Amino acid sequence: MHPGTLIGVPQTDPSSQFDVATTVRRTDGGGLAADLDPGWDVGGGILNGGYLLAVAGRAAVLESPHAHPVALSATYLRAPAAGPATLTVSPASSGRTLANSLVTLADAGGPALVVQATTATLGHDEAIWAEPMPDAPSVEHCASAAELRHVAQPVDPLPGLSQRLDTRLDPATSGWAVGRPSGEPVIRGWMRFSDGRDADPLAMALFADALPPTGFALGRMGWAPTVQLQVLVRALPAPGWCLVEARGGDMAGGWVDEDYRIWDSSGRLVARSRQLARASRG
Amino acid sequence: MHPGTLIGVPQTDPSSQFDVATTVRRTDGGGLAADLDPGWDVGGGILNGGYLLAVAGRAAVLESPHAHPVALSATYLRAPAAGPATLTVSPASSGRTLANSLVTLADAGGPALVVQATTATLGHDEAIWAEPMPDAPSVEHCASAAELRHVAQPVDPLPGLSQRLDTRLDPATSGWAVGRPSGEPVIRGWMRFSDGRDADPLAMALFADALPPTGFALGRMGWAPTVQLQVLVRALPAPGWCLVEARGGDMAGGWVDEDYRIWDSSGRLVARSRQLARASRG
Repeated sequence: MHPGTLIGVPQTDPSSQFDVATTVRRTDGGGLAADLDPGWDVGGGILNGGYLLAVAGRAAVLESPHAHPVALSATYLRAPAAGPATLTVSPASSGRTLANSLVTLADAGGPALVVQATTATLGHDEAIWAEPMPDAPSVEHCASAAELRHVAQPVDPLPGLSQRLDTRLDPATSGWAVGRPSGEPVIRGWMRFSDGRDADPLAMALFADALPPTGFALGRMGWAPTVQLQVLVRALPAPGWCLVEARGGDMAGGWVDEDYRIWDSSGRLVARSRQLARASRG
Repeated sequence: MHPGTLIGVPQTDPSSQFDVATTVRRTDGGGLAADLDPGWDVGGGILNGGYLLAVAGRAAVLESPHAHPVALSATYLRAPAAGPATLTVSPASSGRTLANSLVTLADAGGPALVVQATTATLGHDEAIWAEPMPDAPSVEHCASAAELRHVAQPVDPLPGLSQRLDTRLDPATSGWAVGRPSGEPVIRGWMRFSDGRDADPLAMALFADALPPTGFALGRMGWAPTVQLQVLVRALPAPGWCLVEARGGDMAGGWVDEDYRIWDSSGRLVARSRQLARASRG
């Protein structure tokens, strides 16, 4: 890999599990490739959708004159296998302020994920209008999501995602783990990488799909496979814990939609996402 | 045009301005074409983004075994001219429950809009969880958005969109028209087609981008060109007025994001959208 030949070179840290697992390299033929890491699964060998989106977002930035993904809209066609994957970036438009491209992530079975990526370069601008961070107990007063999940549905080993992210849930939104769902489809918690890597715009693609399904808070313990996911990155995250809140919109006719909002340690809203998923059958 | 040769044939009514303006026909060469109608502009000859998305959504449904767009994620590359346009639908996956495709709308200047479309067939399912309609004054106690816009910024003639949609704004969110912005980026109003056509899933793509920019409510009277727009259609709208509410998320660094929620006359949430736009300079 010759970083000098890449158009954009996002910072990667070889000591970061996330940076290593989302590395996109240029092949001898000039294409882009990644090795999907089995360690970012949500159980049953299914790779987390946010992890896959981060890999696609990194490919988009590599081929862009801009440094950050600001809008990623993804369609999930099928679950790709861990292992070798190819990334195809088709530029759509490029200007001084932003660039647009279409990214396809494929494994041996064919295309798995298609992403419309808008890249730009985020600065440290004051917000003219910003949504304030909601009240939440401090990290010390929250419980590990991995431990709660284990209480709710014992699994061994713990899914990779639960190991690589340190998530501490607000007790007001984690009653489902002990059979007392709140009845409101909201799950909120503090999140950071377990290895201490700071959050950045690319990490927002991961954080924006990394809480348990909000259906859990309604006592519906099944999974909800994502059909479309849009992530907007609205500011550069400050170092430290992010507060991540997922809120279910509507559940009807076998479909569910869900919004995420993410605030950084300074209280600034840094990302928001929305997804449409097939409703959990739990 | 031979409707029998189309895979899916959405209902079109020749007496509906919207149906005529969003007609997609198959060309002799087997491609899809539309005539972008100059009558759906937002001023200055710029066609409304929701109108363009509805044309793309109709093309997606035409090539799908399913009847309705349920998720449309669009990137706006450039403003297309009114007149002839071509639509290219690339199927991505198709199953019993849903189908995915990528739709490109192009005019003589090249691609203008790229849309990831998920189509499915919506039924009349009871919601397991649904967001209730907010309080709003009755239609009779709301004021015409077209008249308010004219008061705020006199234009002659009125933009086509303002003529083709009948929008009545909640007075609590229309103070900007008389120099008294509310200070909260929310605009809410009742909406229907001026010619009486009932709303349907395709109309949601239009309604979800048809209120004045929420920056107006902050006293910022400039336009905000859309970069990405995602529309989710969550239920079949009942006949009658829809209540449409736009809420600005964050405004910072030259970007703004905005959410729409749409309820039908029965109070059921039928659609929601989110867009990222360049912030208005007003």
